Amino acid sequence: MVNEKRRASEFKIIAEVFAPLAAAMEGAYGLADDAAVLTLEPGRQMVVTTDTIVAGVHFTADATPEEVAARLLAVNLSDLAAMGAEPLAYTLSAALDDRVDDDWLGRFARRLAAEQETYGLGLVGGDTVATPGPLTLTVAAFGTVAEGRALLRSSARPGDRIYVSGTIGDGALGLRALGGGLAGLDADHRAALIDRYRRPRPRVALGQGLVGLAQGCVDISDGLAADLGHMAAASGTAAVVEAARVPLSPAGRAAVDADGDLMRVVLGGGDDYELLFTASVGAGEAIEALSRRLDLTLSAIGHMSKEGPASAAGSVTILDSKGVAIHLKEKGYQHS
Amino acid sequence: MVNEKRRASEFKIIAEVFAPLAAAMEGAYGLADDAAVLTLEPGRQMVVTTDTIVAGVHFTADATPEEVAARLLAVNLSDLAAMGAEPLAYTLSAALDDRVDDDWLGRFARRLAAEQETYGLGLVGGDTVATPGPLTLTVAAFGTVAEGRALLRSSARPGDRIYVSGTIGDGALGLRALGGGLAGLDADHRAALIDRYRRPRPRVALGQGLVGLAQGCVDISDGLAADLGHMAAASGTAAVVEAARVPLSPAGRAAVDADGDLMRVVLGGGDDYELLFTASVGAGEAIEALSRRLDLTLSAIGHMSKEGPASAAGSVTILDSKGVAIHLKEKGYQHS
Repeated sequence: MVNEKRRASEFKIIAEVFAPLAAAMEGAYGLADDAAVLTLEPGRQMVVTTDTIVAGVHFTADATPEEVAARLLAVNLSDLAAMGAEPLAYTLSAALDDRVDDDWLGRFARRLAAEQETYGLGLVGGDTVATPGPLTLTVAAFGTVAEGRALLRSSARPGDRIYVSGTIGDGALGLRALGGGLAGLDADHRAALIDRYRRPRPRVALGQGLVGLAQGCVDISDGLAADLGHMAAASGTAAVVEAARVPLSPAGRAAVDADGDLMRVVLGGGDDYELLFTASVGAGEAIEALSRRLDLTLSAIGHMSKEGPASAAGSVTILDSKGVAIHLKEKGYQHS
Repeated sequence: MVNEKRRASEFKIIAEVFAPLAAAMEGAYGLADDAAVLTLEPGRQMVVTTDTIVAGVHFTADATPEEVAARLLAVNLSDLAAMGAEPLAYTLSAALDDRVDDDWLGRFARRLAAEQETYGLGLVGGDTVATPGPLTLTVAAFGTVAEGRALLRSSARPGDRIYVSGTIGDGALGLRALGGGLAGLDADHRAALIDRYRRPRPRVALGQGLVGLAQGCVDISDGLAADLGHMAAASGTAAVVEAARVPLSPAGRAAVDADGDLMRVVLGGGDDYELLFTASVGAGEAIEALSRRLDLTLSAIGHMSKEGPASAAGSVTILDSKGVAIHLKEKGYQHS
């Protein structure tokens, strides 16, 4: 089933391609033992998440190995960020199809090495198998957080301000541009949106900075409206967002200015990997200071309210500039 | 891409099928948050492993959901066992193909629940995606071990006795029987071998009992000869095994008696998931006591020796009853 000519054996792949990614991790034993051993400092808890990406479903068939590596780590790191965790380690399970050869693996591993360096984590385990189906990659990522301080989506409270990091909608607009949409947009703006889709930047430093400041927190992977709905439901609150306050990039602004309907893509589309969080009004100054320290825009876009007859727990109301509710046809983007 | 008629959405699957498996795990937040939070007792380390199984590669196309669930957990628990770890939790990533419907998922989840109960662990995270390729399942499993006490394959020493648990070769012989081989064997023996292949029983209690007793330890997943070679190489030792001491089940014995060549399958075949470990001669009585306590046969099958001109580190010499070395065509079984 394996294309032996183009790809080394499983043992060789692990020893030559992936073991170097584990070299700095003491308890990884060079990926040569049955499992890895991780040590937690006293007073820390372990944060655990897992995400799978499948060729043709979560990345396009022409995605480069570098893009695949970055996305694979980013979707997992974004979950750690949303919990306020400091990245520590990850395991990688790779079901490789016939199109993956040694060159592909080498480029994939070099990009993983660069991402590890950026985000401060190391490989501690892996499994490599052959598949007749599409390339399927799973990472389980581990971080640490001070005991009892993890950011939960269930902790938003009525009266909290709702914040988002960075700009919203670029990922979903970039995916449209990749598919041939947004044809009227100028080339620089198209390139900027496509780059945002292709290179998600998990907000790892922000997540850690929000520990003790934010109430509820999630990452935006399914779309602003959907993920806000998840947080509101988990918190037993309702959410109100002013669409005009949702921060757009210059490219996103140009796209929406040219076609107002794209605002629905901005609000409902996924793949932003920004953080969406709530904080008490009293935390406003500390959040501004954090924004300056990280050189990252943090925008207040609305507030949480009590659930009530007109606003059930989990409801998300998005108001246009005249205060009229915008109805999204699709509340969220679903990968599967 | 998803067969919506036969299968619920990703959110619904997680909420209805998998969240109940996380109900008893405090830091799993019902699988509704971005990640889980695990707490380690003071003085414990976290043991982490991951394994992927693919339909048509690691299990046959006609495998039941119960069989797939048991195998998926077992291959991971066997790795935890080989480190001496106590199981704690696991994450599950499921890339589901069109043939998986709600009925399949329900049966799969019920078997996972039963296995969780048996081995004392709970689900803490998951991802469910659709795939056009074969069903691909990845588990990352977490256990705990007293600080510095994990069993490593690199800790075997010259002079150690080599032990195996249970009986060897049944998994590989069972796979042959499933494929139509071993036609002359009587029905009961065939059924026993096939059951061993279909239901790996990870030696979780044994692994924990070996902490402080064993030197080197691995689980037998690639085959006795291959896994012993891995341990010898990691330890800088050479291994000598007496084939006559390798414990066979009644069914395995019957198969080998009928066809002596099958001894190569026994020694070289995989899928046993027994533990292979070494211990000093002085630990012999304690190991016998452990064997009685667990009601599990632990057989001394050979010894580790220093590497030397005639026996390089990592070499495995298997002697027949006349003391003549047996040459295995294939040293190990490789899944990929």
